[in-house]
Amino acid sequence: MQVVSQNRSFGGEQTVYSHQSETCGCEMTFAVYLPPQAHNGPVPVLWYLSGLTCTHENAMTKGGFQEAAADFGVAVIFPDTSPRGTDVADDDAYDLGQGAGFYVNATRDPWRAHFRMYDYIVNELRDIALKNMPVQDCHGITGHSMGGHGALTIAIRNADMFGSLSAFAPIAHPTQSDWGRKQLSSYLGDDESSWAEHDSTLLLEEYGWKGDLLIDQGANDQFLDLLKPEALANMMAKRRQPGQIRIQQGYDHSYFFVNSFARDHVAWHAERLS
Amino acid sequence: MQVVSQNRSFGGEQTVYSHQSETCGCEMTFAVYLPPQAHNGPVPVLWYLSGLTCTHENAMTKGGFQEAAADFGVAVIFPDTSPRGTDVADDDAYDLGQGAGFYVNATRDPWRAHFRMYDYIVNELRDIALKNMPVQDCHGITGHSMGGHGALTIAIRNADMFGSLSAFAPIAHPTQSDWGRKQLSSYLGDDESSWAEHDSTLLLEEYGWKGDLLIDQGANDQFLDLLKPEALANMMAKRRQPGQIRIQQGYDHSYFFVNSFARDHVAWHAERLS
Repeated sequence: MQVVSQNRSFGGEQTVYSHQSETCGCEMTFAVYLPPQAHNGPVPVLWYLSGLTCTHENAMTKGGFQEAAADFGVAVIFPDTSPRGTDVADDDAYDLGQGAGFYVNATRDPWRAHFRMYDYIVNELRDIALKNMPVQDCHGITGHSMGGHGALTIAIRNADMFGSLSAFAPIAHPTQSDWGRKQLSSYLGDDESSWAEHDSTLLLEEYGWKGDLLIDQGANDQFLDLLKPEALANMMAKRRQPGQIRIQQGYDHSYFFVNSFARDHVAWHAERLS
Repeated sequence: MQVVSQNRSFGGEQTVYSHQSETCGCEMTFAVYLPPQAHNGPVPVLWYLSGLTCTHENAMTKGGFQEAAADFGVAVIFPDTSPRGTDVADDDAYDLGQGAGFYVNATRDPWRAHFRMYDYIVNELRDIALKNMPVQDCHGITGHSMGGHGALTIAIRNADMFGSLSAFAPIAHPTQSDWGRKQLSSYLGDDESSWAEHDSTLLLEEYGWKGDLLIDQGANDQFLDLLKPEALANMMAKRRQPGQIRIQQGYDHSYFFVNSFARDHVAWHAERLS
């Protein structure tokens, strides 16, 4: 692992690392914020998965998670959103290929050689964090848009690994959205039965979530038709899933929205991980 | 004035405007954050002046001022750092020309046609804010690096306009620094007597500041030799200037540093402007 950059932030350290990923077969970059409490011993860790077009950097610089993470003594890991590099398959569209890994393990060419973000997060990056950083094996997960989809699907399928779960404007029902059908068919093929385990509304229907959920969604989000929060809200109510969906008046899909509720989410996770 | 973008942020509105500037003779862009309290009547305003290479956008997205501004009911204005455009003079160096206005009124060619950031901030943009936004004629000013220089020099020279003053890692003694001598000679000419009114250490010596000062400076700042905080610290002590210089252990020159202390500065100004 190589240190790409390191900056003091709210008394802790914001570090960017690069490493050769066995899972993705390429060099990967991720960021970790360690709060000042990490000097005194391992701290719980919150995973933040980013949305389409993002790298590890967007939320690290614009999300505003560090202040609350320092207040509550939680580490935050910001993975990249896909494998990268000239040897890695890509597509001209912003919503497929590099920057758009969708947190699945691709099974179709040309994607399957590198696009294994599901395994990368759940296994490789978790192991790296536990071996190299002062973090407890005690994880919360959140994310924005495609990253909200990643957080919900990864946590529900790995409930033993995650103690808390939230999302910002998640792609909530990708099997019924143009943000989903295109990517799932490209990465997984046309057999839609293989898609269900990557759809948080369907996963919630089948498994529920062991704890309570926090979902924030801007009422003025320009992508509401693609995100389909109504499917998730319907399923939560139908399944009597504890938690809350907050429709936030006036907010759009930007990092100004994420930033405005970052503290709420860090506090939510800290309370449930402690 | 045209609205370039508008995003809800911490219950308020983060807006970017463009307008044809009479002072600079070109189209200028600036950002304004209005806290939710502005719905109930005019609020005090904090000016944030940015550093070399920045536009209005860097601090708006990475500074983290909105949360505290919403908590304290303060507006924040983020001006650009220079005139811009293909008709505007420029230089290949990052620290001269566009992105590097240094908050002076240039008197030398090729700069004097457009580079009038001092008048732009003090007169034109103040008038625009007072006429078009729910802000009181009650101003604080801060800034980072070149913008810290701008804040200190503009406030000390216009003490009737500003009620509070702070800075993050300001260029504190530009007449004796390569961040200063190059720009002041280019914009104002080689007669160094014209430079003194753009050097906060010299201005402080002559006029002092009517209130107390807050200066934050990272101990690991990679530009300490250019910033010369020791000159300002010396002058503050020598002149018995009320205020504090805080040397912050481990912090560098980045926005991670600014972000970490943004709340302190907003609170400082809010207390003095109320």
